[in-house]
Amino acid sequence: MKSDKSEVALVIGAGPGLGASLARTFGNAGMRIAIASRDASNAQTLAAQVSDATRSEVRGYACDATSETAVDELLGQVSNELSPPNLVVYNASGFLMKSILDLEVDELVREWNVTCLGAFIVGRAAAKCQLAQGGGTLIFTGATACYKGSANFGGFAIGKFGLRALAQSMARELGPKHVHVALVNVDGTINGPEYSEVAPSDIDKLLDPDAIAETYLAIHRQHHSAWTHELDLRPAVEHW
Amino acid sequence: MKSDKSEVALVIGAGPGLGASLARTFGNAGMRIAIASRDASNAQTLAAQVSDATRSEVRGYACDATSETAVDELLGQVSNELSPPNLVVYNASGFLMKSILDLEVDELVREWNVTCLGAFIVGRAAAKCQLAQGGGTLIFTGATACYKGSANFGGFAIGKFGLRALAQSMARELGPKHVHVALVNVDGTINGPEYSEVAPSDIDKLLDPDAIAETYLAIHRQHHSAWTHELDLRPAVEHW
Amino acid sequence: MKSDKSEVALVIGAGPGLGASLARTFGNAGMRIAIASRDASNAQTLAAQVSDATRSEVRGYACDATSETAVDELLGQVSNELSPPNLVVYNASGFLMKSILDLEVDELVREWNVTCLGAFIVGRAAAKCQLAQGGGTLIFTGATACYKGSANFGGFAIGKFGLRALAQSMARELGPKHVHVALVNVDGTINGPEYSEVAPSDIDKLLDPDAIAETYLAIHRQHHSAWTHELDLRPAVEHW
Amino acid sequence: MKSDKSEVALVIGAGPGLGASLARTFGNAGMRIAIASRDASNAQTLAAQVSDATRSEVRGYACDATSETAVDELLGQVSNELSPPNLVVYNASGFLMKSILDLEVDELVREWNVTCLGAFIVGRAAAKCQLAQGGGTLIFTGATACYKGSANFGGFAIGKFGLRALAQSMARELGPKHVHVALVNVDGTINGPEYSEVAPSDIDKLLDPDAIAETYLAIHRQHHSAWTHELDLRPAVEHW
Repeated sequence: MKSDKSEVALVIGAGPGLGASLARTFGNAGMRIAIASRDASNAQTLAAQVSDATRSEVRGYACDATSETAVDELLGQVSNELSPPNLVVYNASGFLMKSILDLEVDELVREWNVTCLGAFIVGRAAAKCQLAQGGGTLIFTGATACYKGSANFGGFAIGKFGLRALAQSMARELGPKHVHVALVNVDGTINGPEYSEVAPSDIDKLLDPDAIAETYLAIHRQHHSAWTHELDLRPAVEHW
Repeated sequence: MKSDKSEVALVIGAGPGLGASLARTFGNAGMRIAIASRDASNAQTLAAQVSDATRSEVRGYACDATSETAVDELLGQVSNELSPPNLVVYNASGFLMKSILDLEVDELVREWNVTCLGAFIVGRAAAKCQLAQGGGTLIFTGATACYKGSANFGGFAIGKFGLRALAQSMARELGPKHVHVALVNVDGTINGPEYSEVAPSDIDKLLDPDAIAETYLAIHRQHHSAWTHELDLRPAVEHW
Repeated sequence: MKSDKSEVALVIGAGPGLGASLARTFGNAGMRIAIASRDASNAQTLAAQVSDATRSEVRGYACDATSETAVDELLGQVSNELSPPNLVVYNASGFLMKSILDLEVDELVREWNVTCLGAFIVGRAAAKCQLAQGGGTLIFTGATACYKGSANFGGFAIGKFGLRALAQSMARELGPKHVHVALVNVDGTINGPEYSEVAPSDIDKLLDPDAIAETYLAIHRQHHSAWTHELDLRPAVEHW
Repeated sequence: MKSDKSEVALVIGAGPGLGASLARTFGNAGMRIAIASRDASNAQTLAAQVSDATRSEVRGYACDATSETAVDELLGQVSNELSPPNLVVYNASGFLMKSILDLEVDELVREWNVTCLGAFIVGRAAAKCQLAQGGGTLIFTGATACYKGSANFGGFAIGKFGLRALAQSMARELGPKHVHVALVNVDGTINGPEYSEVAPSDIDKLLDPDAIAETYLAIHRQHHSAWTHELDLRPAVEHW
């Protein structure tokens, strides 16, 4: 079943937090949605939830973003079953808080694979796919660690700085070819199921994932004469 | 005549380019509009045009943004005649391309007054006004010169770097008090009446002011849990 | 009395802290020294102290760096009495910690005049003087506030961001003409007479002005094939 | 043979260009030198040349910086044969100019291994060694690609941005423990044997490696109350 009626958004790294919000928001905006997660059943469950919530067509896929084969297969499937994705979001990320002295090579490489190498593999494949369609949008989820290497965050920052390098370089190269590449630096903690017990007075210290998703959608909708490459998002009450 | 039916946007530095687009875009979004320009008849003419184009209530005011008295009077008038502005855009700016060796003190001060001092005077007054209302949005129009001091742009960059300092400091101070302060760095040349003869093939090298205005509106509409402080806007084809 | 035996360094904004250390360090390196301060007797006293400490020729001058006439006169005098300065340091600065809501236009302008306008007036005059000699070095004393607009530091940051814009723009324009323009961002509090009572355990939290001065000298001595434009200086123990 | 008479500098990534200049400069400053290169005979040849040129004790070692075992062994050998290195420079780097669309995963990983992972492995080992001695200096050779992701430089910039993240994070964590971590961003092309035929008029467009090395030495000599973390180096004539 393939339709040209509406745009297709592919969200890679779709858990119950921001990934779910992105899918719902794009679905509510009339897009058909592909959700990819490392775990097939997670992807399916989330797809079903988003489908119920949005009345959009939503499909879940299993994909290890650090595998070229898996990513190529994913893009092929999405293209066939929905259509080539107009909007691709790379939302997968590691996280690591550890002294540089205690950090192991294995950990660092694993962290970098998810945060940066996967972004490259997905970004390159998505760009090729979009170039063949005449253009598209590619958004990477960044963090404060994209531009600040804090103490005990060396392992995380190496991946996130690398992600920013990738996004910047792709934007400069692909912008003139109609692929809009953007980096959204989320500066703070995103609300999610694990914060369901948080005190009401502390809710405002968290980023609402639905609110974040609105900005992703706004970026995708920007006219090609005024594209944003990089922006920050943080709670009003954040100290920064 | 004062209405509480809709939000009020105040655009300071409203010429036929971006200022007009901002006013139209906010008007089309259902806001009532105040337009301020140094020249009263320009402000009135533009207000009439925007009113015709949007069916919104639009009022034009003369205001020298570098005068505290004039700015206080403007905010008083807007508050009385429409209501205290929920969204204030400081869109006034100088421009100066000149060797640092040829730059005169008078020129530099004049440039800084319009680009930075006026932004401070307007920003402070708008913030006080919005704090009294429980919050609001304040957007400054920036440029590449906000973060890069190019050769022969020293005079311009001094003002624009200063504008960025102001915006950042206000955002950190006022965010927790519900005033959303943002800086939009326009990286390129904005299309306008003076480019009406530009070759169609070159149109894409210019930023469409209506497209820029959509992003200002999106910033204003952001939920307080996920505010953007700074972003860039440039044409897809721009080399940067 | 004019000698060509050695280089001449001019330090503008010479108080008992960093200014005095710069003068002593340059004097110990064999340079002849001109010290300029707003207050004539301060300049004379400091010149006498530095002369005693270094066996170098040291002269004190009164100069209001925000006055074009005064700065031109100063450079004329230094050129005549010593020789055109090979190294000029703009070390004058305001300081202001105040809510943006309480900041007055007068304060902001005064702050900016000392921190940024004076730097422009001195920088432009020094550059012209050095261009006529075939080159030279021009160093501006910056701060954290050159690149971060913290809450309650808006007035200070507007001046310091402007200083950075000036330095960057001058470096790009004048580097190819053999004038080395550098910005030294001092990130922390400089030790000085007012800290004479500080606990020994807290000494390391302050920057030693003699240590800072060594880096200024190293910048001046850099070969033209490998010039530094901007660097930071902070105590080893600083949290940043 | 182990001596405590003088400091020991270890240069990793020592070819005939900057590596050789660093070794000579540190040797001329009275330090004993360890040179490490992937190729044993290169390391030995360079060690002999530097020894002849400086009258310092210089030893060459083979080391693959991307191997933990090799790096641990290197630091053990240097510590035993000279003494634990007071100054360690990570000067190894890949280089890659290629469209993001043509970049292969293998290339990217190889590039990152040399530019970033090796820096981590060496930096962590050097830091542990220096912490045990009460402190030391650790300098990473950076590039423009540390902070700018240019078109066709994505693969290179991912490694260099990562290097900057590592350096920043280590500096914040280890500075208070007396390890001085610095990043030197070389913005331009370094002169070397391969440019021996360059026209005299073009010499000034290249960075002289001896000139660069002076700045590394100056960083190492900085007093702990005024340390530089990051600086740029470029030719006076460079356009940037």
